[in-house]
Amino acid sequence: MNVEIITIGDELITGHTVDTNAAFIGKNLTAIGLNVRYRSSVGDSVEAMEEAFHLALKRAQLIIATGGLGPTDDDLTKRAIVKVFKRNLVFHEDILEDLKRRYRDRGIEMPAINQNQALLPQGARFFPNRIGSAVGIGIEEKGKIFIGLPGVPIEMRQILIDEVIPYLKALKLAGSTQVIVIRTTGIVESKLAEIIAPGLKLETGVRLAYLPSYSGVDLRIIASAENDTGARERAQNLARYLEKVCGPHVYGRDNDRLETVVGDLLRDNDKTLCVAESCTGGQLGQLVTSVSGSSAYFVGGLVAYANEIKIELLGVPSEILQQHGAVSEECAIAMARGARGSFGTDFALSITGTAGPEGGTDDKPVGTTYIGLASPHANYARRFRFGKDREMNRSRATYAALEMLRREILDIK
Amino acid sequence: MNVEIITIGDELITGHTVDTNAAFIGKNLTAIGLNVRYRSSVGDSVEAMEEAFHLALKRAQLIIATGGLGPTDDDLTKRAIVKVFKRNLVFHEDILEDLKRRYRDRGIEMPAINQNQALLPQGARFFPNRIGSAVGIGIEEKGKIFIGLPGVPIEMRQILIDEVIPYLKALKLAGSTQVIVIRTTGIVESKLAEIIAPGLKLETGVRLAYLPSYSGVDLRIIASAENDTGARERAQNLARYLEKVCGPHVYGRDNDRLETVVGDLLRDNDKTLCVAESCTGGQLGQLVTSVSGSSAYFVGGLVAYANEIKIELLGVPSEILQQHGAVSEECAIAMARGARGSFGTDFALSITGTAGPEGGTDDKPVGTTYIGLASPHANYARRFRFGKDREMNRSRATYAALEMLRREILDIK
Repeated sequence: MNVEIITIGDELITGHTVDTNAAFIGKNLTAIGLNVRYRSSVGDSVEAMEEAFHLALKRAQLIIATGGLGPTDDDLTKRAIVKVFKRNLVFHEDILEDLKRRYRDRGIEMPAINQNQALLPQGARFFPNRIGSAVGIGIEEKGKIFIGLPGVPIEMRQILIDEVIPYLKALKLAGSTQVIVIRTTGIVESKLAEIIAPGLKLETGVRLAYLPSYSGVDLRIIASAENDTGARERAQNLARYLEKVCGPHVYGRDNDRLETVVGDLLRDNDKTLCVAESCTGGQLGQLVTSVSGSSAYFVGGLVAYANEIKIELLGVPSEILQQHGAVSEECAIAMARGARGSFGTDFALSITGTAGPEGGTDDKPVGTTYIGLASPHANYARRFRFGKDREMNRSRATYAALEMLRREILDIK
Repeated sequence: MNVEIITIGDELITGHTVDTNAAFIGKNLTAIGLNVRYRSSVGDSVEAMEEAFHLALKRAQLIIATGGLGPTDDDLTKRAIVKVFKRNLVFHEDILEDLKRRYRDRGIEMPAINQNQALLPQGARFFPNRIGSAVGIGIEEKGKIFIGLPGVPIEMRQILIDEVIPYLKALKLAGSTQVIVIRTTGIVESKLAEIIAPGLKLETGVRLAYLPSYSGVDLRIIASAENDTGARERAQNLARYLEKVCGPHVYGRDNDRLETVVGDLLRDNDKTLCVAESCTGGQLGQLVTSVSGSSAYFVGGLVAYANEIKIELLGVPSEILQQHGAVSEECAIAMARGARGSFGTDFALSITGTAGPEGGTDDKPVGTTYIGLASPHANYARRFRFGKDREMNRSRATYAALEMLRREILDIK
């Protein structure tokens, strides 16, 4: 069964908003074995939507559209649905009552504009929205399924996961595709390819993609077969090969994130962590604490942006700053040691670098970054040379710091 | 002139990667007055690309495709271009020489696989890539323009900005569309609509969209007219109306970001800032320092994730934690005061809350957050009630803190 995802909104085609909805939907449909084959976006225009819906109904069996279901005037999706499927809008008393009750519970009177939200195309099913006011809409016609969801990400996600996925599963639409992602870090794409290519034999129906990002390179396996067992076996065969040849560069699979992997290592070993950050300004602390339950091992951090703060609050000797500068191995080590002392943790990570775009020198061009690690056994720092982009440099430094800690805990040289 | 953006890669349709390229391209083409009308994605399959390219050549005059131009085996875009345009690949000695020279400069031998990068469709122009190995490809045929760019974001961006935009401008393809974004924060979409709707009169060719995000609600104006002056005037008329009725909720226009607006206010008033963060774990510091040059006003921050750190390093009295808990007005104020004292700044912002998903109580459910502000004149905190999603709560708290500081500096009540 071919799937098309259509995201709706001027902001998506003019690039004002990055389209995270399509990725979320694609991921979750792929995970239940559906074959997402088309993905498109249109602006807030009834004609453009009609055109996109007609094309999708021609080439896909399942269409999921998001956006344009809100109560404001630029939300036109329902009008396009009515035209394409030639159905009238019907008023649903129960939807309105539910909406009114939820406003009452919050002690607010429902804005009159929300009455529109109780109008649905004739014969459509609806998928309840527990967060916002726009319900999801489902239409089955001539062997095709069309589903319209609101575009606010948190609402779309709730409805997709709680309502739409169970509905699709009940229809037994799942095919036989298996996806496995092998996650690597600390090695570039071309080097990985040199390791992987020589012994690589791709079975029929198996595809491998290299997906580089700030956190490392993911190796994505998509395996198709006649049935689930076959697909799983093909994917697993390749996964095992990749894990063998890539060795310690692999930190996890699928939804493993480096920050959760490192967090689990800390928790399992009953160790604690603090951080001292300069150029990343708090990004390492943010990433570590993005994991729910990170308070079990993360104690805190110091953002020492100004040099005086490095001296006063982290105890970096002012001679180090004078002789070697803030972007130096010596400073990184002193920052990590200082933080470890103040916060009383087992491990401390530090980051100091020239994120850019200003501030580079011949000796230490933009992108030069030192990452320090302090532990009960050792204090050391590594020099990295990232690129010219400020955001990229900060992100790469953040992940490189976590990877240093992972290798320290696992004793990988 | 209608534009279609096509992004290529299995990872985009299966949702492994969020498609930031399409947004970047859309934004930059819209900014030069081009009408981005279609946007689609296809996987790493030559047939799917052919289908998408044919469709695009039918309905758009300018097609920009990204992805699948790398040297590895999953990069198939060139094969699809060759088939659709019925042209052979031709070897370009100069491209290979340039690539070899750049590898030499870095002291690395060029991997042999990169020789493919010197093959281009016959008659195509190329757009140099100063970062990676895949050059951009341009084909003009029968009044249509097709441009293929690599998918690595930093390479795509460099080629688009440095090469493709000037090329398009030279062709005088610019139309007459004007986009203005009015940026608001601290007020929800439906409230904004209540303020805006009563006096709103949309001129012909003018569209208004409400775009909510973590940082606030953007009001996007797209105005078209016969010529540039007309489009600009229509957009400006609406922008002035919106800025009048929305008053202090407006913090900027277009590419203004709340963090740069607040940063400029600090710099212009010669004031300094530090932060004390609990549940956000460093995100506020990260956001403030995402602005290049923020060292002029940002001194540093403390991430006090554990309660002992709040007591020991921020000087929060332990009685406050015992009596009111860490998520309290009292604690937020004490954190801000403590940080302001340690870092010696004019202002300090603090954030303490229950980001979730665990940790909520009846009294302080998940999403409850206190934001504190300390200044030479006052110390206070505000209570916020965000939602249930950890990531969302942390982001909203971060922006709400910046907005509190903006209002403090501008003396907005």
